[in-house]
Amino acid sequence: MDYESDGSARIRKIREAVGRPSRRVFAGVGEEAIITLPPATRLIATAETLVEGVHFDLTYMTARELGHKALAIPLSRQATQGAQPLYAMVSLGLTQGLSDPFVIELFRGMRELAKRFRVDIVSTQTVPSPTALMVNVTLIGQGSKRSFTRSGAREGDLIALTGHVGTSAAGLNCLKKLGRDALYDQEEIVKAHLSPEPRIKESLALLKSGGVTAMGHLSDSLSKEIYEVAERSEVGALLEESALPISPATVQAARLIDASPRAWALYGGEDYELLVTVAPHRLAEARSALKRLGKPLHVIGRITGKREGIRLRASDGETLPLSPRQWSHFVRRLKKR
Amino acid sequence: MDYESDGSARIRKIREAVGRPSRRVFAGVGEEAIITLPPATRLIATAETLVEGVHFDLTYMTARELGHKALAIPLSRQATQGAQPLYAMVSLGLTQGLSDPFVIELFRGMRELAKRFRVDIVSTQTVPSPTALMVNVTLIGQGSKRSFTRSGAREGDLIALTGHVGTSAAGLNCLKKLGRDALYDQEEIVKAHLSPEPRIKESLALLKSGGVTAMGHLSDSLSKEIYEVAERSEVGALLEESALPISPATVQAARLIDASPRAWALYGGEDYELLVTVAPHRLAEARSALKRLGKPLHVIGRITGKREGIRLRASDGETLPLSPRQWSHFVRRLKKR
Repeated sequence: MDYESDGSARIRKIREAVGRPSRRVFAGVGEEAIITLPPATRLIATAETLVEGVHFDLTYMTARELGHKALAIPLSRQATQGAQPLYAMVSLGLTQGLSDPFVIELFRGMRELAKRFRVDIVSTQTVPSPTALMVNVTLIGQGSKRSFTRSGAREGDLIALTGHVGTSAAGLNCLKKLGRDALYDQEEIVKAHLSPEPRIKESLALLKSGGVTAMGHLSDSLSKEIYEVAERSEVGALLEESALPISPATVQAARLIDASPRAWALYGGEDYELLVTVAPHRLAEARSALKRLGKPLHVIGRITGKREGIRLRASDGETLPLSPRQWSHFVRRLKKR
Repeated sequence: MDYESDGSARIRKIREAVGRPSRRVFAGVGEEAIITLPPATRLIATAETLVEGVHFDLTYMTARELGHKALAIPLSRQATQGAQPLYAMVSLGLTQGLSDPFVIELFRGMRELAKRFRVDIVSTQTVPSPTALMVNVTLIGQGSKRSFTRSGAREGDLIALTGHVGTSAAGLNCLKKLGRDALYDQEEIVKAHLSPEPRIKESLALLKSGGVTAMGHLSDSLSKEIYEVAERSEVGALLEESALPISPATVQAARLIDASPRAWALYGGEDYELLVTVAPHRLAEARSALKRLGKPLHVIGRITGKREGIRLRASDGETLPLSPRQWSHFVRRLKKR
C-alpha cells in the first residue's frame, strides 16, 4: 500500500509566497478561485504552458526568472488584445527532485511581476510530473469594447515595433554557447531572454490613442508574426532590413559567437515587443502615446497588397521573399533524445 | 539550423473537433479568448492538470475517455462551488509520437461532455512535452451570491453523498490487475474510473434547495475529503461503515481480485460524487431536490465536536480513528523509476 503525502506544508509556503489577494478576490490561492468583475465586462482569457527542455533550461535560468517569464508570456498575450490583466491561475507540474525553496522562488518571481501589473494570483495547483517541470499560467483580463486583433491591417499601413528585435535570441544563443557566467557584462541580452517585459502599458496607451489597425507580439519570430498578421488581414507586407531595431548589444553578441544579428531579428522570437500596423496619418498620435511612457515606436516596413506576398528589402536594396521561420533549439535537442 | 513546423494543420483539425462556440464568445479556439458574462457576475475559476503516468494510463484508456475525464474533473470542482460552468480553456503538452487522430479524439471526448453541460471550449493551446502527455483545463463559471464552501459544517449536521463510493477505485484496480479486455462485462466500475460524471446539476439543485452547510467532492479519497471539510469547519466527524453506499458491482470486483471494498470506499478517491453536510431538519428538502433529478442522497455519518476527531464506526460496532489516506498507485510507480 502506498499513500500520497498531502503536501499541505508546501501549499502553505506557496500561499505565503503568493501573498494576499486584493479585495476583488473572495477566496483564492487554493485550487478554486471566486472572483468578481465590473458589470458587463468583456473578459479576455489567455493561457500559456512552459515545459522544461522545450521552452526553458534550468542550467542557466533561476527559479525566480522562470516564475517571471511564465507570467510575462501570457501577460504579453493580454497586451496583444488591449486587455487589462486581473487574475492569474497557476498550475505546476513538479518533478521529484525539485526542492520547496525552488518552488517558492518561482512563485516569488511570479508575484513580483504580478504586483507590478496589479494582477492577483488567485489559484495555484501542483501535480507531480515525471521528467519535466512545467508551468501553466491562465490569465483573465478585462477588455474594453475596442480590442486589438491581428486581422485589421490594411494596404498602406505602416508596420512598427515597440522595441528591439533579436535581443532575446542573442541572449539564448550566447547562454547556450558560452554559459551564463561568461555573460556577466551582457545584462541586456540575458535579461531580454530570461526576464522579458510584457508591454501591457504600451498596449493600453496605443488602444487609447487609436489608429492601430492590427496588433501582434514577438513571441514566435518576427517573420512568423508578420505572416500571421498578413494572412488574417489578407494583405502582403514589405519589411526593411535597414530599419530593423537591433540593439548594439545584440550586434556585439553576434560578433562574440560569429552569428547573424539579422537572422536573430527575423527568425529568433521571444522579444515580446508589440508588432503593430498603423495608418500613416495616425503614426504621430501612436508615437506620442508611447513617448509619454518613455517608449519608442520603430517603423520597420509597410503593409502591401496581398499579391505582393511577404517580402524583405535587404540592406543592399534587393527585395526577397521572407519565409515564416523560427529557430527552435530546444525542440531540436528534444528530437535528438 | 532547425525550424519548427507551425502545426497549423493540426490546429485547424482541433478547431473542427471543438466546434463553433456559442454567441457568448467573440473570438476563441485560438490561444486567446474574448468572452462576455452577465452583469456583476461572480466568477468561479477552476484549473486541473492531468499528467500521463501520474493521473492516467493510456494502456487502458482511450483518447476520448481522457478528453472526457480531463474536463469532468474541473467540472466537478465547479460543482463543489455551486457554479454554472461556462468556458473551458485547454492546454495540451503533446509527446512526439502522438498522432493527430489521437488529439482530435481527445477533443471530441471533451466536446461531447462540454456540450451536455453547455460549456464552450474557448481556447486551445498545444506545446511539445518530452515524455508525458499532459492536459490542463481551466474552467470559468458563473457563481451566484450563495456558493458552497468546505467551511460551513456544524456539529449535528448529517454527512451525505450523492452516489456510490469506491466504484472508481474498483475500476482502477481491476484495470491494472486484469486489463480492460477482461472487464468487458464490468461497465459500471470501468466507466466510474475512466468517464466520471460531474455532479453539476445535483449541485445547482442542492444550492437552490438550501440547507447544505458545506460541500466537497470525492476527488481525493473520502477520508481525505472528510478531513478537509472537518478541518476548515473546525469540527469532528463520525462515519458509519455500514452506511457507505458501495455498489454491488464494486463488491463483486473486490471479490474478483481479492481486495477490500471498504478500503476502496475510504481511501480510493476519484468517484466525483458530492460530499455534503446538511442540517437534519433540512435533509428532506435536499433529498427531494435530488429526487427530481432521479438521484439519491446517502447519509453516511454526522458532524461531531472538534475534540472527537474524525472517526469511523466499523460494521462490528467498534469506533476507530480514521486516517486521511489515499492510494496512489501511479505516484508509486513513478517513484520506482
